[in-house]
Amino acid sequence: MDSALRPFAPAIPDRLAAETVQAMDAADPLADRRSLFALPAGLVYLDGNSLGPPTVTMVERYTDFLVNEWGARLIGGWYEGWMALPERLGDRIGRLIGAPAGATIVADSTSINLYKAARAALALRSDRRVVLIDEADFPTDRYVLAAAARDAGMAVRAMPARRLQEAVEADVALVAFSHVDYRTAAERPLAAIVDAAHAAGALVLVDLSHSAGVLPVDLADSGADFAVGCGYKFLNGGPGAPAFLSVRPDLLGETRSPIPGWMAHADPFAFAGEFEPAAGIRRFACGTPPVLGLQALAIALEAFADCAIPALAAKARRLGSLLLATLAAEGAAGKARLISPTAEDRRGAQISLAHPHAAALMAALAERGVIGDFRPPDIMRFGFSPLILRYEDVWRAGRILARLLLEHETQAGPAV
Amino acid sequence: MDSALRPFAPAIPDRLAAETVQAMDAADPLADRRSLFALPAGLVYLDGNSLGPPTVTMVERYTDFLVNEWGARLIGGWYEGWMALPERLGDRIGRLIGAPAGATIVADSTSINLYKAARAALALRSDRRVVLIDEADFPTDRYVLAAAARDAGMAVRAMPARRLQEAVEADVALVAFSHVDYRTAAERPLAAIVDAAHAAGALVLVDLSHSAGVLPVDLADSGADFAVGCGYKFLNGGPGAPAFLSVRPDLLGETRSPIPGWMAHADPFAFAGEFEPAAGIRRFACGTPPVLGLQALAIALEAFADCAIPALAAKARRLGSLLLATLAAEGAAGKARLISPTAEDRRGAQISLAHPHAAALMAALAERGVIGDFRPPDIMRFGFSPLILRYEDVWRAGRILARLLLEHETQAGPAV
Repeated sequence: MDSALRPFAPAIPDRLAAETVQAMDAADPLADRRSLFALPAGLVYLDGNSLGPPTVTMVERYTDFLVNEWGARLIGGWYEGWMALPERLGDRIGRLIGAPAGATIVADSTSINLYKAARAALALRSDRRVVLIDEADFPTDRYVLAAAARDAGMAVRAMPARRLQEAVEADVALVAFSHVDYRTAAERPLAAIVDAAHAAGALVLVDLSHSAGVLPVDLADSGADFAVGCGYKFLNGGPGAPAFLSVRPDLLGETRSPIPGWMAHADPFAFAGEFEPAAGIRRFACGTPPVLGLQALAIALEAFADCAIPALAAKARRLGSLLLATLAAEGAAGKARLISPTAEDRRGAQISLAHPHAAALMAALAERGVIGDFRPPDIMRFGFSPLILRYEDVWRAGRILARLLLEHETQAGPAV
Repeated sequence: MDSALRPFAPAIPDRLAAETVQAMDAADPLADRRSLFALPAGLVYLDGNSLGPPTVTMVERYTDFLVNEWGARLIGGWYEGWMALPERLGDRIGRLIGAPAGATIVADSTSINLYKAARAALALRSDRRVVLIDEADFPTDRYVLAAAARDAGMAVRAMPARRLQEAVEADVALVAFSHVDYRTAAERPLAAIVDAAHAAGALVLVDLSHSAGVLPVDLADSGADFAVGCGYKFLNGGPGAPAFLSVRPDLLGETRSPIPGWMAHADPFAFAGEFEPAAGIRRFACGTPPVLGLQALAIALEAFADCAIPALAAKARRLGSLLLATLAAEGAAGKARLISPTAEDRRGAQISLAHPHAAALMAALAERGVIGDFRPPDIMRFGFSPLILRYEDVWRAGRILARLLLEHETQAGPAV
């Protein structure tokens, strides 16, 4: 197990003194981004993969919206910018995930968007019978895909994600999975799965919740047909931020949302008798755009200006490796089981460790100012949002975790 | 047409001098509520039926959420109140619409909630074939109901709202309509339609978007099975505020949302393999609750503390009558066609006038500081949010509208 914790050694210096990690921070081209965010003093926040923090501009900018847009323009706000927010923010997220302009919309929640995208995909393959899913995917993905399949008279076939590629047969309508596994942070080979699916005539729906804003995605290059994702994780849009949905442009004309809300109409303010879908990605809108959430997301996305996603990914993964290196340097390697890929280029911005007393350890970490999260049955998750974290933060968290793991073993006996 | 504009005369003094309407304001038990809202100086805002204004507390209270909840608690906010917001606000709205505690949830948009409620209802009547709808209902209601009917293998039968009651036959699964017509403000006889539907074994889904917070609804007394509605009209939750969904409590146990997002699970943080719906109204949640919108709605709903809905309705309807009385007193009765019911107790908090040049007239009103809205082809809508309007405001608006109608006739010849 020791060996599993150390393959990144070449990238991280062996000696992990404070000076060493401080030098890493000094050399970090993204170091200045941290000052864009309002973070509680003294906290090491390793949960940006669950909920990102607000920017320091959020209060002033949001107040400006409340006072000068909602309060001053009232209904006129719809004619002066709000109406275009879903597509405008969609394009900004599109640039982060490699989607072309006009392919992405911000609307509803990830769960609702999964349903809309899945039903739309299945309608394009109505002669087929099966939806392939990752049996360990995030619950909402599995539940919603099963419901969409039932609605289309199809069956779900669940399997380990690593088998999806080989399992696409002629009866498969859709392959649906998360780009990054929420528990292990394993990154799935998006382009390869798309190739396999398309070769068999199937479509692909990928959930980018754990990669948007932190990993290179190249949605267009991969050829993926539908993508959805979350606004409140690495995009920092705030709790329950609206989600996004992206459709391959050459499919757009022939595809439809299963829930034709008025904002998906070609001319919503004609209040027409018959539903006629908007020409572009707007057809995947539904109800009135959630401006209160869209405004916060718009402010949050400004922190990505001039950021190259590969640089964000490199730092996020290196922070993960640093956590592991710190545990090893503090003699705690092997005291918890690494369930994330050891190779940086096969994992997302997260390290997951399994431990039988994971919940108690995460609570003890929180008492000491280190916030990560617990996922049943026994997983400690640490997320590495590269915009907000210093190398020194992660080193400090690693030292505290190492001490807890060693103390825990002394008190409770070997845990693994 | 003159006669149609005057039946309210007994309630409104004949002479409409400034002193008269100022006396009405002085006697208004709701007059103090206006100071709770931030309204642009000099504006007469008759569009609270489209988008309500923010409260004066909004900036400070929302800033407190941004700084002390999102910013300071970060992920911990979920364990300290956010998770309960959908049901807590649902109950607060429930009290405004006569629903019992535990029957109402705030989630998603009205369009999404319409879809969820309609599919849930149709699943309970899967042996039937027809969904009855109001042919003139708001577009999203018609489009979404048609989609839900298609999904259930049923057909939509559209007709004038006044015929719904008599048209419920043994093949009808669901009767769906808006409590108040968005164009004419006509109030539908909810209890009578429910009685007719239930007598034939059909269910009822009512859209309360134009009545929640301003008209007495008595949802439980009516026996209505499903209700949805909007958070941004008379409830003042802000642009794109989350919407609500209410289910008759004795139906809850046997009904299901068609989109089983993880937040509808009995134990979302178990990340369980199988979907098991929450016991209560939570089963109609879907994705992560939209906290950014829920917080604004929570602040907005405080303006309803200690308000009796019948008093709000009485004032709103009287304001509508005052607009008509002012037009009559200014010699403009009959210069536009009243399409709202003349009887106060048959209409919502709105007056609609038809005029062939309605769009131009609304623009001219806006230039003069009176905001209402235009609905195609020829409708001028004036909404009367009783929390924010003075009698004097409506009198001023009426005088300006009267002058415009008379000038318009002089310039363009008789319009009607």
